Amino acid sequence: MSNIIESMERLVNELSKLPSCGKKTAQRYAYYLVKADNSVVENLQKAITEAKQKIHYCAKCGNFTDKELCDNCSKANPDPIICVVKEPKDVSALEKVLQFNGTYHVLHGVISPLDNKGPNDINLKSLLSRVGEENIKEVIIATNPDVEGEATAMYIANLLKPLGIKVSRIAQGVAMGSELEFADAITLGKAIENRREM
Amino acid sequence: MSNIIESMERLVNELSKLPSCGKKTAQRYAYYLVKADNSVVENLQKAITEAKQKIHYCAKCGNFTDKELCDNCSKANPDPIICVVKEPKDVSALEKVLQFNGTYHVLHGVISPLDNKGPNDINLKSLLSRVGEENIKEVIIATNPDVEGEATAMYIANLLKPLGIKVSRIAQGVAMGSELEFADAITLGKAIENRREM
Repeated sequence: MSNIIESMERLVNELSKLPSCGKKTAQRYAYYLVKADNSVVENLQKAITEAKQKIHYCAKCGNFTDKELCDNCSKANPDPIICVVKEPKDVSALEKVLQFNGTYHVLHGVISPLDNKGPNDINLKSLLSRVGEENIKEVIIATNPDVEGEATAMYIANLLKPLGIKVSRIAQGVAMGSELEFADAITLGKAIENRREM
Repeated sequence: MSNIIESMERLVNELSKLPSCGKKTAQRYAYYLVKADNSVVENLQKAITEAKQKIHYCAKCGNFTDKELCDNCSKANPDPIICVVKEPKDVSALEKVLQFNGTYHVLHGVISPLDNKGPNDINLKSLLSRVGEENIKEVIIATNPDVEGEATAMYIANLLKPLGIKVSRIAQGVAMGSELEFADAITLGKAIENRREM
């Protein structure tokens, strides 16, 4: 006979809705929370509530922010470059490496006919108006190097290039530190195609 | 310039206190929660609050329960066998495989001099009184097969054997489906030592 506790089952079930959190991990979290000091759990709950209340999308670029404009969009005299990404988390990944004084633009998705997502279902129109208003010279498209990411990049490039905007795409090739032997054929093909003179 | 949102940082920080949840996973969870529907987040919060309120330790065995006694301890005429484990999660692991009509006893820790944890710091005294009150014939010790688990098993065996109680320990040997080549020497040694006639 198994010891079933309804409220525990419910907690495990809710926790397993977290991204890539399986049932076993959710159970570990649930046991931890039930056993933890009340203060630990209260702090977590408070942090969730506060984040939900305070954080919304930047009116300009669509990234998360707790002000009207995010820190990137409110800086004085940014370079006229916009880096376009799929998700807010891509911004924080790029911020760590990208040495530039431009701004970002978060699409909150990509064009994906299979999922019934067209250009109007992502944060694209505001990119076009920004390009005009902010006198943008270059748009770097940093969507993921997968089918939907590529298609979205192509779509945006086709929109912007006729306007005389320079459109660039992040390089695709073999990952640093990896071994050629294990690179897939498409990646390797891209790495040859995009080779640079030394 | 990086886009730092205080309430997001705080949420990531609180989430990364979950067991084996690194900063990157915590960030993924935080972004998911901020983006999720309010109802998803409310359900999660409610499940946490409810589990914290309703779940406590079984008065008899120390396992989690939402009643006074857990389901295992409230069954009629259990076999006079107690299976001793370190944590509540071990009970749910064993329940899946253990075909027995006995009860469990959760120590909530193991004897570990390095962490300053002696026999009085774990749920041991109540095991002794249970053994007397419930007329127990056998105690199966299912603590982890590590140094502290072994030491705790030895300690309990030394307490109970003089009372004429049969004390057994879960078998240690090579894991099913594993390859001998990769088993460590101690495990392999145990597997030979505890070999059974076929």
